[in-house]
Amino acid sequence: MTSPERFCVHYLITVRDGRSIEEHARDISIEQTVELPEDVIPVSHHRDGLVGRIETVSAAAETDAFAVTISYRCDITAFTVPQLLNVLFGNISLKDNIRLTGLDLPPGLLEALGGPRYGIDGLRRLTGVYSRPLACTPIKPMGLPVNELAQLASDFARGGADLIKDDHGITDQAFHRFDERVARCQEAVDNANASTGRNTLYFPMLAGRFDQVDAQARTAVRLGVRGVLVGPLLVGCDIVRHLSREYGLAVMTHPALTGTFFHDRRHGMAPSVLLGTLFRLIGADISIFPNAGGRFHFSHSECQELATALRAPLPGIAAAFPSPAGGMNLQRLPEMATDFGADSVFLVGGDVLRQKDRVAATRSFVDGIRAIFGENLQPVEREAVSACEWQGGGDNDRDVQDVLHCSDYHWHDRPVVDYKPDQTLPFVGVARHELIGRYGEQTAFDLRYFEIAPGGYTSLEKHVHEHVIIGVRGSGTLRMNGKELAIGLHDVAYVAPLQPHQIHNPGSEPFGFFCIVDRQRDKPQPVF
Amino acid sequence: MTSPERFCVHYLITVRDGRSIEEHARDISIEQTVELPEDVIPVSHHRDGLVGRIETVSAAAETDAFAVTISYRCDITAFTVPQLLNVLFGNISLKDNIRLTGLDLPPGLLEALGGPRYGIDGLRRLTGVYSRPLACTPIKPMGLPVNELAQLASDFARGGADLIKDDHGITDQAFHRFDERVARCQEAVDNANASTGRNTLYFPMLAGRFDQVDAQARTAVRLGVRGVLVGPLLVGCDIVRHLSREYGLAVMTHPALTGTFFHDRRHGMAPSVLLGTLFRLIGADISIFPNAGGRFHFSHSECQELATALRAPLPGIAAAFPSPAGGMNLQRLPEMATDFGADSVFLVGGDVLRQKDRVAATRSFVDGIRAIFGENLQPVEREAVSACEWQGGGDNDRDVQDVLHCSDYHWHDRPVVDYKPDQTLPFVGVARHELIGRYGEQTAFDLRYFEIAPGGYTSLEKHVHEHVIIGVRGSGTLRMNGKELAIGLHDVAYVAPLQPHQIHNPGSEPFGFFCIVDRQRDKPQPVF
Repeated sequence: MTSPERFCVHYLITVRDGRSIEEHARDISIEQTVELPEDVIPVSHHRDGLVGRIETVSAAAETDAFAVTISYRCDITAFTVPQLLNVLFGNISLKDNIRLTGLDLPPGLLEALGGPRYGIDGLRRLTGVYSRPLACTPIKPMGLPVNELAQLASDFARGGADLIKDDHGITDQAFHRFDERVARCQEAVDNANASTGRNTLYFPMLAGRFDQVDAQARTAVRLGVRGVLVGPLLVGCDIVRHLSREYGLAVMTHPALTGTFFHDRRHGMAPSVLLGTLFRLIGADISIFPNAGGRFHFSHSECQELATALRAPLPGIAAAFPSPAGGMNLQRLPEMATDFGADSVFLVGGDVLRQKDRVAATRSFVDGIRAIFGENLQPVEREAVSACEWQGGGDNDRDVQDVLHCSDYHWHDRPVVDYKPDQTLPFVGVARHELIGRYGEQTAFDLRYFEIAPGGYTSLEKHVHEHVIIGVRGSGTLRMNGKELAIGLHDVAYVAPLQPHQIHNPGSEPFGFFCIVDRQRDKPQPVF
Repeated sequence: MTSPERFCVHYLITVRDGRSIEEHARDISIEQTVELPEDVIPVSHHRDGLVGRIETVSAAAETDAFAVTISYRCDITAFTVPQLLNVLFGNISLKDNIRLTGLDLPPGLLEALGGPRYGIDGLRRLTGVYSRPLACTPIKPMGLPVNELAQLASDFARGGADLIKDDHGITDQAFHRFDERVARCQEAVDNANASTGRNTLYFPMLAGRFDQVDAQARTAVRLGVRGVLVGPLLVGCDIVRHLSREYGLAVMTHPALTGTFFHDRRHGMAPSVLLGTLFRLIGADISIFPNAGGRFHFSHSECQELATALRAPLPGIAAAFPSPAGGMNLQRLPEMATDFGADSVFLVGGDVLRQKDRVAATRSFVDGIRAIFGENLQPVEREAVSACEWQGGGDNDRDVQDVLHCSDYHWHDRPVVDYKPDQTLPFVGVARHELIGRYGEQTAFDLRYFEIAPGGYTSLEKHVHEHVIIGVRGSGTLRMNGKELAIGLHDVAYVAPLQPHQIHNPGSEPFGFFCIVDRQRDKPQPVF
């Protein structure tokens, strides 16, 4: 057996307690995996590589500090985001002087995480804008009436913004409900796009309760929204992957609540790890971060490393846009251009909102970018959009009906399915109505109604799953176990596992019956 | 119009840049609400109280530091956990020298969050253990075969542990899948409970992907699990509220990934705020934290304040158990007893796992607690009973019948089961016939026939499992989702997961219907 694949985590560890760096590293390798006193760890856990393995230890540039690499078995992450975070920094977040500085994940784990659905290339295809940074403007402040929020969206789109995002504080407040404001803002952007011929994208903030996330995502997708703004630490990091994969939404991540990870440069995570590598891997197409020289304290080099982490080649993982923000303004465009280059999203708020004419202000912003980079516009990639793109699977993507009213042995919205006879499983005159189980219900069973025409019969077959049959129209015969069993109104018949059986209608009127089977069931086998 | 209700946030702010404390406080009040340069904020936003208001500023005990209280309108949180976190500490997490030290929420916001479903009192009713700390032992390490995990669960339960939790690193890894290991561990605990007469509770770790959370919760509930272990920062804080409210699960929270909030005592949040007040408000019944003197760096007074925050009186919010952990051992029981008192959960791992005889080791642990506190055992709280529940009877060791012939809405060999009304789940005039599922069949579903007498009704209840109902005699009414749905002959009704529902017979003849449910299903919860 080949040994299970491993991934590497790079740490900067500062030692100030007189213990050796090796002891510190061993503590981490245990804390993040088996979390037991050394004498209690089963020997097999070391042998099987379930405990973290110290790969390298070397002195770091910082005083008292060491660069340490520990590897972990990929499968202990369950290939899920929550458990990956747990292994990376769950318990050791509660220690001191341990800083995550990098990650190296092998293809299997990269593939499980998936990375950006669109990435830089995909968002350029959606917007049609190439060879320059995308211009993004924020709808704000929280608390404006919905019509003013929509007016801002309209102004920004008509002014030529490539992307428009909600302020991250605009969620589902009673004074601007998610459904209403997203509908109005997307409509405003659609209208502007129709007149400009561009494809400005609107990213509403999605920060609902756990049980609102899917509903809000569906609402957004149905309204034609192509991307959303998400604070991974606010709603849970795996939601980024979920929105990206399930709904085909582009995701712009917001760093809200992440700050304590970066604050102490001897502990936590480098911004390039959390806002860079990790947010990209879980699916961020654009990662917003506080640029150096704004209202926050990221250093110039931290921002550079972050941008690099978002765009560095990784097998099978698209590159993501860095979006330097946090008090940026038009005067700083040349500096931002030098620092981040064309493959960036520039986010400017106050400087555009301050102007009375927001259309003109937005145009100045985009012109400022064009003046530096020029511009290459291409026709926008036309994809199937909105509800058509829904990935939840045809018939299961619908509201489940409360009552299927019966009229003359037909049920509303449940078509009759008629199969052609099959050579291996011959039957005659059988019509089927799928009633429950294939229309969004989550039952462990399916309820069907069958009707056999006079003289008709089902195939003689057997299977492991059982049948429960309830006669409701006319009468018929169940041939089973060497017997001919009559089934009349409301008789309940049971077909045991692997019991060969066949149903006949020897009468002169239709024989109708409900049939209940396990949802998960084996294929019928012919009986000869 | 009365002005909207506000809540207060208390900060410790350290000033080291020569600016005034008032300027710092104003920065926060804006950053966390409208996030705009001062000159761009609409005047009406100040008038309407949408910007944070500085309530008090005073010098703090710490050098250079001030205690500041800022109030915010409750409705800007959208009364949701993600947006509350955002307002509390979203952007300012990225600043320096701002520490959240306390919260005062008015009743409206407290009610929206809800707090623990069980709390200290509720978990004592479920376990029957009063007047001493509950003893909790962890199933670990991650990577053991499922049969060994289940053996540990069995040993702990037979040894008398009150609570058994998974290690927080045990999730859904391929070598111990969630469904299998939870089934096996719960079964082991059930078997042990049957022999001890106690009601040890098992808390599996729930850390699935966003789209696995509900499925894992359903699996757990169907298996009879009453509580789960959750890392709020790993999966998203609102999941605690969701699991507690939707599934009636008790929740034990784990501090994984929270550490950077506490690490710098001039920034972040006091442990009493995040692991205490906030985790309690979002629904933690038990909050695990690293006790002083273990492997982590919380101070003695931080732990005391945390325990106080979990148990302090709050209108309408149950008190939660503090669970000091992180390298605790049997020698420390007296000290933990002094520090945390009877209303605590003591978590001891290595010291119990180190012993060869884990039953005896668990018994020593519980005896150690009893030696200090004594013990008051009470009968375990009986649960509500619904007409819909299976109450035993039937016969699985018989030959399964081929056809149950129906005669006047009775089926041969299937007696009518009549339940007495129950105080907690009241119903009137409901007769039940178990037709398929309890007489030797191996279906994944049960088929029952219910008949409601004129004027009768079932209890108003909800549950994770779904109902499929087929009207076959007379007619009745399904009350669901604010609607009154008529059900007549062969109408098929579907009741979705967790949808409160009740069936009435307003007519003058019996209303009879088939009802199909999953075999493995959760107990109905009353709806008030």
